[in-house]
Order: sequence, then structure tokens, then C-alpha cells
Amino acid sequence: MSSPKSITLYTAKVCPYAQRVEITLAEAKADFKAYQIDLANKPEWYAPKVNPASKVPAIAYGGPDVAPENPSPESTKLAESLVLVEFVADLFPQSNILPKDPVLRAQARFFIEVIGSKFIPAYIKFVLRGEGYEDLLAGVAAVQDLLPESGKYAFGDQYTIADVAFTPFFARLKLAAENELGVYQTGQGRAFLDALSSDKYAKFNAYVNHLLERPSFTSTFHEAYLKDVYAKRFVKAQ
Amino acid sequence: MSSPKSITLYTAKVCPYAQRVEITLAEAKADFKAYQIDLANKPEWYAPKVNPASKVPAIAYGGPDVAPENPSPESTKLAESLVLVEFVADLFPQSNILPKDPVLRAQARFFIEVIGSKFIPAYIKFVLRGEGYEDLLAGVAAVQDLLPESGKYAFGDQYTIADVAFTPFFARLKLAAENELGVYQTGQGRAFLDALSSDKYAKFNAYVNHLLERPSFTSTFHEAYLKDVYAKRFVKAQ
Ligand SMILES: N[C@@H](CCC(=O)N[C@@H](CS)C(=O)NCC(=O)O)C(=O)O
Ligand SMILES: N[C@@H](CCC(=O)N[C@@H](CS)C(=O)NCC(=O)O)C(=O)O
Repeated sequence: MSSPKSITLYTAKVCPYAQRVEITLAEAKADFKAYQIDLANKPEWYAPKVNPASKVPAIAYGGPDVAPENPSPESTKLAESLVLVEFVADLFPQSNILPKDPVLRAQARFFIEVIGSKFIPAYIKFVLRGEGYEDLLAGVAAVQDLLPESGKYAFGDQYTIADVAFTPFFARLKLAAENELGVYQTGQGRAFLDALSSDKYAKFNAYVNHLLERPSFTSTFHEAYLKDVYAKRFVKAQ
Repeated sequence: MSSPKSITLYTAKVCPYAQRVEITLAEAKADFKAYQIDLANKPEWYAPKVNPASKVPAIAYGGPDVAPENPSPESTKLAESLVLVEFVADLFPQSNILPKDPVLRAQARFFIEVIGSKFIPAYIKFVLRGEGYEDLLAGVAAVQDLLPESGKYAFGDQYTIADVAFTPFFARLKLAAENELGVYQTGQGRAFLDALSSDKYAKFNAYVNHLLERPSFTSTFHEAYLKDVYAKRFVKAQ
């Protein structure tokens, strides 16, 4: 395969979808430019020139060497976090985050499907809608059911796209719950974490501890910044 | 890569998700066993032994040579149509339905994302909830925007996973609309098709005509059977 062309990532520290791509690029040790999009005040060129859906993450791939704020029509614009994760994995096969074996690959994609259908909606319901954490614990159980008997990650000791897709969401949930930052009532964050600390979820907890230690995650997670954003977003009515 | 092991597909003629996998297997010229699951009366072994989510499609891969209704614990069970489409494409690279170029691959996956986020929900709203076809025309326009200037399919003359993912849904929509089979008022099927026949959608219409001619589609689409199922499902109150 020919060597990868230039990559410009349009991202935002707050966004878990964008962090998926940042983690992948870190795992790939890829050379790239990152450009922060202020989601509250998006540059007027972003939708027309980069992503018509006006979301991060997006990648401009190839084309002439231009400043990110002046995207060239000659670069290829790509969007959607999971598409981008697989794209970067395809460009940098030596990252090994996409398993080579078709069965493992299918299982990794299925894991991601479960994150998208069972974990993320429950996380949104709890943190952003204050609907209780029962579904979230069910999501945790669904993830745990897919974990192997041994190894640090979802597919043993090899870190894969499955782990990449999950980590940014779990990390944000943990940060929100630890600091009671969400639309739920103060105390519900702690109550969720207490429920989660049950022996029932021991395998899940060991797994997420490994996820949160991975350098590609820690180097792309801006905890203090996020906490500040959440604190402003979730000002509690007293 | 080692040659593919035995494949048993659990499927149902009515199901567009399952047809995606049938089309892919046909494109791959794969040898496989197909087992029809009666969705109205699922065999009691299906969820525990094949797919805990109790949905079709699912694949049992490898393991001893057993009857489909007696699945072996030694085979790997895989589910989710898009996971299975990529799995079969990975097992049979000579099918060429997964583009080799990472950019094209990403664009094909993005196309599938648009089908899933813009077309399928609008199809369900129209046919199953009777909510009008405005969103469906917007979905059609979104698909059309992604079509190339020339070539029969979503990525030119090479038939890909993008086409596979879309065809079963468009075919069911067309069949339903032509026969006024849906929860919408009689006449709305025809009205939608009239709106769709506008010059505005010429590129889309040329595209879907090619899709509906593809042998891997025609050989896996059971029009008379489906019409019968829909006619029973959508008995109109007179
Ligand atoms: N399905 C998309 C979701 C991306 C997304 O929702 N990004 C948010 C930020 S986390 C965004 O850019 N929203 C647009 C906005 O805030 O205006 C993906 O997986 O990339
Ligand atoms: N997300 C799944 C959806 C599969 C699905 O919804 N299949 C339906 C039939 S079209 C099913 O088996 N439903 C279970 C039931 O009818 O009980 C996929 O892409 O495979």
C-alpha cells in the first residue's frame, strides 16, 4: 500500500466521538494536524468546506499543504467517528488495532455495535436526561458479557477498535458521575458508582481500569477542561 | 489467508437485514447452508444457541458439520447484518465488494451510515407509521448526493457493500408503495412513487434500477412471498 497522505483532523476536546479518532491516530503514531472546532461557535467555513453535517470529528485527507482553516477542495473530506477509526486503522495496519482474523474483526465490530445500541443511549439517558441508571447498569452487563476470560482489553492483550470506541464514553461517564455533573439529582452520580463497584461487575471494572491507563487515551483526554465544561453545562438548581 | 470454514446462515425471507447477508454471500459465490427462521414462531433453540438477541441474520461459522437446527457450541456465532456483510467480504476478498482503497472503503461505510441514519428511519416512518413521505424524499436526496457522476452503482461500476446495504430496503419500499401496502392511507404509495419519478431524482432512479437488476439481489428477493406477507400485515380498514 502507498504511504498515507496528509491528515487534518477537525476535533473538539469535549467530544467522545472525536476522541475515538484521536486515540486511533495516537495508536497509529500517525503524523497529523489537529484543529479544534468550537462547537458553540463553529467557523462559518466548516460545514460548507469540511463536513456538511457540521459535526466533529472529520478528516481532510491528502491534497495540497494548507492551513486547516483554509481547507482545499482537493483533499478528501471524511466524517463519522467509526468510519474514521477504521480508515486510520486501514492506513496504518501496523497499529494492529484492527484484528487480522476475520472472526475477531467481526467480534470487535459487534462489540462496537453493543456500545452504540446499549451503552451510549443509556449513558445519554442518565447524564443528559436524568432518567436513572438502571439501563446503564444493563449496558455495563452487556459489555461485561462480551469480555474475555483473560487479558486487559476486549480482545485479550491486544488493544483494538472495540476498546477505542468505548473508552471516551466510559471516561466521560465516570468523570460526570464522580463530580455529580449531569441533569440527574446530586447523589445519583455517587449512587451509580456505588452500584457499579459491586462484585457483579468486577470483570468490567478491571477492564475499564486498563482502558483508562492506556497512553493513547490519557494523552487525548482533557480531564480538567472537561470538568469545567460540564460544571458550566450542569449548573444545579439549588 | 486460510480458506473459509463452513457457514450456516440463519435468515428470513421477509427481513431486509438478512437479505444484505444473502446478497453478500451470493456475490462471494460462497458455499453455505441457509436456514429459515419463522420470526412469528421462532424455534426455542434459536436465542440460546445462536443469537441471544433473537434476531436474524446470524451466522454459525466453523465447528463440526451439524444440522442448522442443532447448532454446535463449537461454531462461532456472529450477528448484526453490517458486521456479517464485512465478515463475508473479509472471508471472500475476491468478491471485491469491499473496496481495496482505504478512502473508497471509508466512503462506502459513510454511505451505509447515511442509509442507516437518513433512509431507513424515514422508510419505517412512512410504511410502518404512516407519517408521510417528506423525510423519505429527503433520504432519497441524501443518497443521491453521494452518487458518482457515472457508473451503475454507488462507487461506479464496481458493486460494493454500500449497494448491498441499501438494496433490500429500497426494494421493500418499492414493493410496498406500488401495492399500497403500509399503514399509510391508500394512494400515498402511488403519491410517493409519483414524487420520486420527478426529474430531480433522475440519478437516484437510474441507480436503483441498476440495483434491482443485480443477480445477487434478484436471486435473494422473494417478491410474491413478500407481497403476500405485507398484504396480510397491512389489511386496510375500509
Ligand atoms: N455519529 C457521529 C456523531 C458526532 C457528533 O455527534 N459530534 C458532536 C460533538 S460530540 C457534534 O459535532 N455536534 C454538532 C454540534 O454540536 O453542533 C460520529 O460518530 O462521528
Ligand atoms: N440491527 C440488526 C437488525 C436485525 C433485525 O431487526 N431483524 C429482524 C427481522 S427484519 C428480527 O429478527 N427481529 C426479531 C423478531 O422479529 O422477533 C441487523 O442489522 O442485523
